[in-house]
Amino acid sequence: MSARSRRGVRGRRLQVALGDRSYPIHIGHGSLDELGPAVRKATGAERVMLVTVPPVAKHYAARVERSLRGAGLRSTRFVVPDGERTKNLRQVARLYDDMLEAGADRSSAVVALGGGVVGDLSGFVAATLLRGIPVVQVPTTLLSMVDSSVGGKTGVNVARGKNLVGAFHQPRLVWIDSATLETLPRRQFAAGMAEVIKHAAIRDAALFARLEEDLDAVLALEPRILVPILARNCEIKAEVVAQDEREAGVRMQLNFGHTLGHAVEALKRYRGVLHGEAVAMGMIFAARRSEELGLARGGTAERLAELVGRAGLPTELPAFPRRAYLQALSVDKKKRAKHVHFVVLRRIGKAETRPLTPAEILPARRGGRAAGTARSGARQR
Amino acid sequence: MSARSRRGVRGRRLQVALGDRSYPIHIGHGSLDELGPAVRKATGAERVMLVTVPPVAKHYAARVERSLRGAGLRSTRFVVPDGERTKNLRQVARLYDDMLEAGADRSSAVVALGGGVVGDLSGFVAATLLRGIPVVQVPTTLLSMVDSSVGGKTGVNVARGKNLVGAFHQPRLVWIDSATLETLPRRQFAAGMAEVIKHAAIRDAALFARLEEDLDAVLALEPRILVPILARNCEIKAEVVAQDEREAGVRMQLNFGHTLGHAVEALKRYRGVLHGEAVAMGMIFAARRSEELGLARGGTAERLAELVGRAGLPTELPAFPRRAYLQALSVDKKKRAKHVHFVVLRRIGKAETRPLTPAEILPARRGGRAAGTARSGARQR
Repeated sequence: MSARSRRGVRGRRLQVALGDRSYPIHIGHGSLDELGPAVRKATGAERVMLVTVPPVAKHYAARVERSLRGAGLRSTRFVVPDGERTKNLRQVARLYDDMLEAGADRSSAVVALGGGVVGDLSGFVAATLLRGIPVVQVPTTLLSMVDSSVGGKTGVNVARGKNLVGAFHQPRLVWIDSATLETLPRRQFAAGMAEVIKHAAIRDAALFARLEEDLDAVLALEPRILVPILARNCEIKAEVVAQDEREAGVRMQLNFGHTLGHAVEALKRYRGVLHGEAVAMGMIFAARRSEELGLARGGTAERLAELVGRAGLPTELPAFPRRAYLQALSVDKKKRAKHVHFVVLRRIGKAETRPLTPAEILPARRGGRAAGTARSGARQR
Repeated sequence: MSARSRRGVRGRRLQVALGDRSYPIHIGHGSLDELGPAVRKATGAERVMLVTVPPVAKHYAARVERSLRGAGLRSTRFVVPDGERTKNLRQVARLYDDMLEAGADRSSAVVALGGGVVGDLSGFVAATLLRGIPVVQVPTTLLSMVDSSVGGKTGVNVARGKNLVGAFHQPRLVWIDSATLETLPRRQFAAGMAEVIKHAAIRDAALFARLEEDLDAVLALEPRILVPILARNCEIKAEVVAQDEREAGVRMQLNFGHTLGHAVEALKRYRGVLHGEAVAMGMIFAARRSEELGLARGGTAERLAELVGRAGLPTELPAFPRRAYLQALSVDKKKRAKHVHFVVLRRIGKAETRPLTPAEILPARRGGRAAGTARSGARQR
């Protein structure tokens, strides 16, 4: 099953162990042309509903369709608008109708070709159309390669917040071609690096050190460096998911940086800030707070901020008033009663969750700003 | 856990064995007032989203809320319009918004108080809100007691057909109070009897004989007869579901009578015919066809038709042209390629599935009518 790319890098194959819902992840460079037979084998489908967005369709849809056809699969293409706003119930309803119109039945599979929006939206449609049909994730952004395509979370947004509607629906296959990152805008790539750094920070000190050393080669998409790093990231995500499919315990560690990250996104109304950028700020805030709480040694947050900054990501929370942050935290859907499961760093490579109230996460500071925001962050004091 | 009702009938408790998704079914007479503690125990929830319809709310919502409050649960009532048309995506979106507005979070559970429409709709909402929160089914129609509340199927309708969108989401508890049948319209009760008779016909010859003997007491809602019959029906449904959660094999037998039943509903555009009535006609058709195919002894269909008729149900398919039936069959979502998994009867108490094409199910007859329809049914020949 392993693929040899144009540049001579062997594909990697991992298995996510979830009993009868186990599935493989394949990571290669230039492997998109081999997708068809893999979809056929993983799903047993006869017909594919291919969901994508215009910029991805332009570069890759025809290649994917050729590969699917070559494997004897009929396919229909559904192009949805790009952007987070597409993840809504109206779009879901339209995909149901359009897929049924195209003949979707229980021998059909959904193939999600694109980033997190495509993966979440079409994963949810696959989870609920005909009470669930198989889905194959073909992520084309760094963020979705190392994060959203693995783990089975699907979701759409409603008026009250992001991903408040969704389902757990494990893919039958995740197919990653790192060469598709060549067409990904740099800012999007950097946003994906936030999750790569997060995985290293919470689980793998050696990976963290390797990122510090090889960051330039990663940013240059050097396959011999990039493919193993993608594989290790998927492995970390897969290990965590396999231990804890439904986010009751260890999976919560993946939320490192996300508590404040989500708050930033909500306060900015999801405009002008990418998810990975918000997570980057949130991670550094959480690491500083871990030091303040005496849970991590001094310098831990600084080392994290250094790597995050080199990856082209912002390191400081925007300066909203503390009460705005507190309010944003208390509508976080991950709240349980009044506490939030806040992810702290014990050291580079090890995270833990702590039940903290929003006020404990964000203690009051002079001037009414929250700790860690631009004017009164831990670095300034 | 067993309840003693006003009329001295012991409650029955069954367990649906589905590994870590196993759940109990409780059947009693007058047991609604004991629901609160059972919901608390089964779900661990702190807050209940109670979904119901006006006629059920009028009789039972206040009692249920009193019981929930007595168990320390806060509850919010959501009354949706009665009728199949309520099972749509607009209603789903409204419930998401209203429940989130009411503070739904991961420590909330949905309680579905009503018939199949309430159970399917709120089961789907529970399956997908916050990627799944617990649901307790409290069926108040005979049909939902013996059929839809057990098994974890949820679904809503889209333009192209019924239940084409949905999820498998097992309830944490099914709580049946047979006394709620006292306010169920007679025609609705009869429609539920179709599924009771179906269970007996496909799985339990002794139950069938008992229904033949005790039908009058069942129709009079005599608890000492009714409660054990409800329990046996839930047991049959639960056995089948436990063997085959996702309808790959034996669960298909529950579709006995449904292939033609669904066709009748579609051809009547779901007006003027209840699901159970359509299934009743479909069962007798299927039994006659089983005799014609040499799979069942002569007289099997007649015995079934006799009991169905005594229960107040129609026994003959409406006289649509054969080509209309054929077309309705070929959009059945259970089709796989061109064959339909048609459920035949081998004898009273034993069913099997056969892959048949629509044309084999409905061979041509003189006059262009389908076999088994009013003018040319097996009884006339």
